[in-house]
Amino acid sequence: MKKILIVLGTVGAFTDVALAQSNVTLYGLVDLSYQHLSSGDSSPLAGQSLNRLADGSAFGPGSRWGLRVQEDLGNGLKANVVLESGFAGDTGVSANGGRLFGRQAFISLASATLGEIRLGRQYAFHDEVTVLNNPYGNSLVTNPAAVANTFATGSIPLFIDAPRIDNTVQYISPTFYGLRLQAMVAAGEGLVDRYQGLKGTFANGPLNLALSYEQSKARVATPGVGAAGDAVNKIWEVGGNYDFGRFKLLGGYQNGKDLTTGSAGIITAPATSGGIGTQIATLTLPGLAGPATRLKAYTVGALMPVGAGTVALNYTRTKFENAAGSNRTLGRIGLVGTYSLSKLTTVYTGIGVSNGDLKDFINEKRVFQLGLRKTF
Amino acid sequence: MKKILIVLGTVGAFTDVALAQSNVTLYGLVDLSYQHLSSGDSSPLAGQSLNRLADGSAFGPGSRWGLRVQEDLGNGLKANVVLESGFAGDTGVSANGGRLFGRQAFISLASATLGEIRLGRQYAFHDEVTVLNNPYGNSLVTNPAAVANTFATGSIPLFIDAPRIDNTVQYISPTFYGLRLQAMVAAGEGLVDRYQGLKGTFANGPLNLALSYEQSKARVATPGVGAAGDAVNKIWEVGGNYDFGRFKLLGGYQNGKDLTTGSAGIITAPATSGGIGTQIATLTLPGLAGPATRLKAYTVGALMPVGAGTVALNYTRTKFENAAGSNRTLGRIGLVGTYSLSKLTTVYTGIGVSNGDLKDFINEKRVFQLGLRKTF
Amino acid sequence: MKKILIVLGTVGAFTDVALAQSNVTLYGLVDLSYQHLSSGDSSPLAGQSLNRLADGSAFGPGSRWGLRVQEDLGNGLKANVVLESGFAGDTGVSANGGRLFGRQAFISLASATLGEIRLGRQYAFHDEVTVLNNPYGNSLVTNPAAVANTFATGSIPLFIDAPRIDNTVQYISPTFYGLRLQAMVAAGEGLVDRYQGLKGTFANGPLNLALSYEQSKARVATPGVGAAGDAVNKIWEVGGNYDFGRFKLLGGYQNGKDLTTGSAGIITAPATSGGIGTQIATLTLPGLAGPATRLKAYTVGALMPVGAGTVALNYTRTKFENAAGSNRTLGRIGLVGTYSLSKLTTVYTGIGVSNGDLKDFINEKRVFQLGLRKTF
Repeated sequence: MKKILIVLGTVGAFTDVALAQSNVTLYGLVDLSYQHLSSGDSSPLAGQSLNRLADGSAFGPGSRWGLRVQEDLGNGLKANVVLESGFAGDTGVSANGGRLFGRQAFISLASATLGEIRLGRQYAFHDEVTVLNNPYGNSLVTNPAAVANTFATGSIPLFIDAPRIDNTVQYISPTFYGLRLQAMVAAGEGLVDRYQGLKGTFANGPLNLALSYEQSKARVATPGVGAAGDAVNKIWEVGGNYDFGRFKLLGGYQNGKDLTTGSAGIITAPATSGGIGTQIATLTLPGLAGPATRLKAYTVGALMPVGAGTVALNYTRTKFENAAGSNRTLGRIGLVGTYSLSKLTTVYTGIGVSNGDLKDFINEKRVFQLGLRKTF
Repeated sequence: MKKILIVLGTVGAFTDVALAQSNVTLYGLVDLSYQHLSSGDSSPLAGQSLNRLADGSAFGPGSRWGLRVQEDLGNGLKANVVLESGFAGDTGVSANGGRLFGRQAFISLASATLGEIRLGRQYAFHDEVTVLNNPYGNSLVTNPAAVANTFATGSIPLFIDAPRIDNTVQYISPTFYGLRLQAMVAAGEGLVDRYQGLKGTFANGPLNLALSYEQSKARVATPGVGAAGDAVNKIWEVGGNYDFGRFKLLGGYQNGKDLTTGSAGIITAPATSGGIGTQIATLTLPGLAGPATRLKAYTVGALMPVGAGTVALNYTRTKFENAAGSNRTLGRIGLVGTYSLSKLTTVYTGIGVSNGDLKDFINEKRVFQLGLRKTF
Repeated sequence: MKKILIVLGTVGAFTDVALAQSNVTLYGLVDLSYQHLSSGDSSPLAGQSLNRLADGSAFGPGSRWGLRVQEDLGNGLKANVVLESGFAGDTGVSANGGRLFGRQAFISLASATLGEIRLGRQYAFHDEVTVLNNPYGNSLVTNPAAVANTFATGSIPLFIDAPRIDNTVQYISPTFYGLRLQAMVAAGEGLVDRYQGLKGTFANGPLNLALSYEQSKARVATPGVGAAGDAVNKIWEVGGNYDFGRFKLLGGYQNGKDLTTGSAGIITAPATSGGIGTQIATLTLPGLAGPATRLKAYTVGALMPVGAGTVALNYTRTKFENAAGSNRTLGRIGLVGTYSLSKLTTVYTGIGVSNGDLKDFINEKRVFQLGLRKTF
């Protein structure tokens, strides 16, 4: 997936290169699939089916190109830059609300002994945990964070997933005996909720575990949830996987409380992804009085290598609760097969079938996909 | 025009490179010209003249940068990605309605014996045929698809040209004795007309020929043209050129029937280039009752190499008809000279003069241009 | 700051390379700083303080990536392309109003003996002069062109700075005995004011001097300033620096007359930066009747190398006058320290303190910043 551009410093002559050399890597991924949707009877498509050519951002890895810069400063210190630009491969349109580097944009200083400080637009911790929870790392129909289009709300995720946070300062510890800690804050800057999160990961041979907790400080009061300054959108998530060699088991659990739409009324285009409340704004659900303020979701799955490919299966189920304790459920079983033409090029096919109270309210009640993915 | 970035896979070590190497080519073109327009008396400029610095997208090749990725998968199989981004060189603004990779975005698998499958945003077939029809391949004032600004309608092309289609699946056959076939479909995805097209090309030594037929299935009914589901915007085009050595002759003919504005009323920004009806939306013409629903256009031209440059001349004439059979005409004669400073850098000058019923309704009644183009 | 991508022409074989080789350099800079603002009592923040992670575009060098293309055409002739894309490193959002290459986009032919012709979007001359006037070249709190957010007007700069002009044709002379002349024009193209400017620079050992004069021809009449066709927004600026070895002294003066909002009423998104009147549109100031039509501003400063870093101090003061001769003042003292971890990576800290009549109307009455910058 990564390529090194051979890059030489131009400062004077080759004798200077050691002092002023950065490796610049231009990398990317394009994923497109044919998708056939069978919609629920109460969905916007009203039971009809739809054929589409869809970018990976719908049930796959979103297409992207990016620049990764690394400079060795000596004494175990490195400076890094990541600029990652998302786009829809079927239309060429920028993803992430039209941002140039909407997937990731950060600069960091990393010490081998003291850890790393990162500044910029970065992944939310629950999104990083979700990657461990399912067979293909937040892609294909096995992704519990993939969004389905619903009748009443526009869209609904099985796992809450506001993948990226603006204006973040993150600290990443060195790894001690497989354990690594991360802490991240983002001042609201007067425009959106203040964000803060903690995450721990443990990796030891075949075992990968992760735990995250995140919350926002509300910028404005939210009726039924709390006052300005209250902690809202409290999300904790645990997940991981274990590789038995012949196959890998994966699973995770997410719990969201005091869910709100974040800084209601002031969310504008560049700020919409600024808080973790973004996707939560959609949780007005058919048959549920008022918005869902609580979510409990789990996912379990397995992945098995088969020759040059893999086969994987998982199941995700979510319960959305409103303030009065009433709830609605949605689930999805996903079955996927992949075949790698090389380390960089893969064809895949998958099917996802929904169940639960809300299955007839979404366009993607049943999804079939057949796709091609190429990294560079 | 193409450059190879030397790129190495980082997967593990150099011994892996053979398995996981993609060539990534960063390429581009910038074209800017000084243009002097003499407008028609009934045009928006009301007979006045205008000086401007214009990007190639006005009577030239639009400025662009792009990434071309190619991976040899063995057994005659290749995986390709093309991501091409258009912009205005005079202002730095994105072209193609602000899309990041609005010129082209596709992924493909190509077999030496079975042909190629391409998924994404690709050129419409009539645009590819038009490239053969005129001396400088859809650039400079000899381009029959270049758009002129008109009094009543905003803009008008001599050849219909909706250059790119979203969400396409294209099959390109191998070449048999110089003959190659292409077929392309794009599901409307519930938002725009469904597109389908066929194209054949024949190349043999000095001779290049191409023929295309395209049509849409209307998503909604269009008054005076047809019901939802009817075939509309039927466009066929033939064209080619013959290189006599001392000079090259070029010509083409385009015929459009049942022209509509496509999915009237639902064309939104990302979708406007999704169907082939896009530019047809403008064909409300001065002196013609109702929109033009039929177009017949031809172009003839010649190109002669002269030292390190070329001289070329062509004439294009179009007849626009409404449903009642009334018509209006517009033509343009173009004369261009180019001089190549290298294989990658060219200066050029040209003049275009319009005639026909509509000549006094367009800003570009007469156009002079003097420009510089650099590829990389 | 610059890297050469090793690039080979693909035209045929290696024997062709000499004829068709362009060097393509992919370069960039990311700058992010933690900033603490103490606002004035009458500012939008009403005396409160604000913490933010800010891109270099606020009191620093704006983050960017770009492509620089150079081709040697022989006989002392070179063809060049610069495409430079700005973005906010804290959010990944495009800078310069969403333009793809909004910082710079031009193509040029440069002769060693005859000078250079550049076409495209280029820096205004007063912006180039301002670079010489202050310790860190239009970055950090010592930048006199940095914009502060104000109560009545949205924003206010100490030096007028409309950094870039669209549609420009610039001539740059060769250097004679350290002296170089530049002339630039941009036709208004019927949309914005016509621009014209002259600039001279002199460089000799430790001395750098620059002088510029720019004005627009108003496209429409401006009440209180003049008729359509009148010269408006007349800005001249002088500045320079002298390097004594132990330290460098820097200073500059800017004078603006007949300031208007440019083509009032027709300024649309892509055109807003098209004239030099852009930022001047904001000069409606608290306590001043009517807009300021005249500005006089100076800046003085010093920069001292200290080990692997620098320390610098400067002071800038501006007087804004309305047509009646009443005026309001604003000033800022800036103190900055930088430390270079390498030639490409720098940490810095700075403080800016405002004074003058307007100091309590701006958010950035006092600014502290602590940042990290990496070039590549």
